[in-house]
Amino acid sequence: MTKQVNDQGGIRMNNFNYFTPTKVVFGKDTQMQAGSLCREFGATKVLIHYGGGSAVRSGLIGQVKESLDEAGVAHVELGGVKPNPRLSLCREGIELCRKEGVDFILAVGGGSVIDSSKCIGYGLANEGDVWDFYCQKRTATACAPIGAVLTIAAAGSEMSNSCVITNEDGWFKRGTKTDYCRCKFAILNPELTYTLPDYQTQCGCVDIMMHIMERYFTKTEDTMLIDGMAESVLRTVKTNALILHENPEDYDARAQVMWAGSLAHNGLLGCGMEEDWATHQLEHELSGMFDVAHGAGLAALWGSWARYVIDEKPQRFAQFAVQVMGIPATGGDPKRTGLLGIRAMEEFIRSVGMPTNIRELGYELTDEEIRKLASKCAARKGGKIGGFRKLGEEDMVRIYEMAR
Amino acid sequence: MTKQVNDQGGIRMNNFNYFTPTKVVFGKDTQMQAGSLCREFGATKVLIHYGGGSAVRSGLIGQVKESLDEAGVAHVELGGVKPNPRLSLCREGIELCRKEGVDFILAVGGGSVIDSSKCIGYGLANEGDVWDFYCQKRTATACAPIGAVLTIAAAGSEMSNSCVITNEDGWFKRGTKTDYCRCKFAILNPELTYTLPDYQTQCGCVDIMMHIMERYFTKTEDTMLIDGMAESVLRTVKTNALILHENPEDYDARAQVMWAGSLAHNGLLGCGMEEDWATHQLEHELSGMFDVAHGAGLAALWGSWARYVIDEKPQRFAQFAVQVMGIPATGGDPKRTGLLGIRAMEEFIRSVGMPTNIRELGYELTDEEIRKLASKCAARKGGKIGGFRKLGEEDMVRIYEMAR
Repeated sequence: MTKQVNDQGGIRMNNFNYFTPTKVVFGKDTQMQAGSLCREFGATKVLIHYGGGSAVRSGLIGQVKESLDEAGVAHVELGGVKPNPRLSLCREGIELCRKEGVDFILAVGGGSVIDSSKCIGYGLANEGDVWDFYCQKRTATACAPIGAVLTIAAAGSEMSNSCVITNEDGWFKRGTKTDYCRCKFAILNPELTYTLPDYQTQCGCVDIMMHIMERYFTKTEDTMLIDGMAESVLRTVKTNALILHENPEDYDARAQVMWAGSLAHNGLLGCGMEEDWATHQLEHELSGMFDVAHGAGLAALWGSWARYVIDEKPQRFAQFAVQVMGIPATGGDPKRTGLLGIRAMEEFIRSVGMPTNIRELGYELTDEEIRKLASKCAARKGGKIGGFRKLGEEDMVRIYEMAR
Repeated sequence: MTKQVNDQGGIRMNNFNYFTPTKVVFGKDTQMQAGSLCREFGATKVLIHYGGGSAVRSGLIGQVKESLDEAGVAHVELGGVKPNPRLSLCREGIELCRKEGVDFILAVGGGSVIDSSKCIGYGLANEGDVWDFYCQKRTATACAPIGAVLTIAAAGSEMSNSCVITNEDGWFKRGTKTDYCRCKFAILNPELTYTLPDYQTQCGCVDIMMHIMERYFTKTEDTMLIDGMAESVLRTVKTNALILHENPEDYDARAQVMWAGSLAHNGLLGCGMEEDWATHQLEHELSGMFDVAHGAGLAALWGSWARYVIDEKPQRFAQFAVQVMGIPATGGDPKRTGLLGIRAMEEFIRSVGMPTNIRELGYELTDEEIRKLASKCAARKGGKIGGFRKLGEEDMVRIYEMAR
């Protein structure tokens, strides 16, 4: 739709759709409800889909199987999902499901496992090659039903409409979005995240905050309701990331972060706003070319993006500084307050052991590598990224240089 | 489940379910999507259900019909829903729908019209007398699909799982709750609320705030995420109620209030908390016995409830005072801060023309009337109401006396 302008020349809130049908079952021991929930949503034979051996060793896969058995729901299993989930395993999953007559996919893991499950779901419910949906050749018209038992608070895939898959044939990393792939249910037991190493926990917290900030940094005005909620969720994640940095088994902190992770990416905190997503795009190239955890990559890039774009609307950065980072409001130059907010965010990032530049990620980029990252990013996104400020290839080069 | 206690003896966050499948379509001109949305959710013949003549006179019913015609969806209509919707009209609706082969109910109006539609939906999808579900004789196992075009921001029924119906045969006002009755879609166009009289607008704003406060005043601790969101939504509604008191056609203010009304009552802002609802129970008796608008009744009672229960947990009232009402935190006696917050809330209520006691509602209650109100309330709710502080019949008498 066309943008509407308010009396002050600002961009008014857009019309929006909000659709979050996922039934969330939250709290201790809730993984034992997996079987009854699968049955509630019509499953007769379930694919249990998971990643490495830790879900097996921890006993979680065993509990899920027990719960399915108790509910009288048959099951087969497929493990081995890797971070940046691969198309080949999805194809294997689709074939297995067809052979076994599977009618429901239960993802037990984090974003990668859920995204892999969504891809299998698309493959099962549609004819032809599932990759078509990821390279925008066709649009999916259905998806087999999916449920999730979440073990990492980060990606938000358990309530989102999106999924990202990597095709090893050329190493293309591509995403697709439809409401069909939204999980029927998501089981969120904060205790399942106790054993995550601190680095992964903090990567998750940064990812959650960035899902909110990619929506929050907008030129849309008159969004007081969503602004206030976004700011409070950001403050909550920040506070609880610090608690978890000291004590990874704090139930209440794990619970706040886990529920925040789902709300950060289910659409609520972007209602009616022009969103940005430039930092995510820049990071996707970084973790495509180097062995970088997504959350850490976002942490390394954000401050440079922020300083590069602040002049586009310094008031927004000042609001972030005051409402999220606790910088005192002065009524003075908004850019000055905004820069203090960026610095405070970077101090927070460092305080939980995350990087604020690419060197701290472990890589010294050459000029050539930077040009290549920017050129790939521009090529992939039709030349431009970002909603807060539109960024072309030269802008991307500058931001990577600043973040080096 | 049994309550869990944290290290400080506070009540920990409960396990919870969160389920909000309603597709929200928000913004200008969205009522023109009514037809395509009905078709999307499988409608072939729709009952257009509405209240008085204003929806017809404003042209809204005409637009909805046009939209259904364009989508090729047949329709019949039934108007005449009154505030505190009546069972007899629901029975008429059920009969009409059966006769006409209606398979989808489209509520065009506010909470009363939506609740009446939910009752018709229950009646259509279940055998036997629909009133059984309201007097807890039986539990509904299905509900015909419902959509809503909202014209008043207040009750939150467009995303809630509840509905309240009045049986004129004895004037019983009773509610029922199941996820079956949640709307398939809700069309929220803030412009449709421009013509509401200020009194109704402000009644709606109080109702919205109270839906949040009935959840917020809890003894559950460690709910930082939900607390922060609830506080920011309360501040938003308060601010925009003041804007609308001056200018009822401010789109942005109408938009914030309308979306807040749905989020206030869809379950989000009570996740994991012991809720209260005593003020609502006390008000239901008041508006049952006298001609009182629900929001105004809540406004008249809340301050007295708050002063009566504050000693149960003064810290919670202090948090409300600081975070919602902007009272400076002192670190001193929480009750003192809490009482300042209650006073500030009452000042706000008066500033938008709402009452803070029953006399201002237009009624001088006798001692006998007060005893009758309390006795009816106690009888209806098994003797006790409230989660923050359990209140018996004598407590209710005291609160009505304080509010007199």
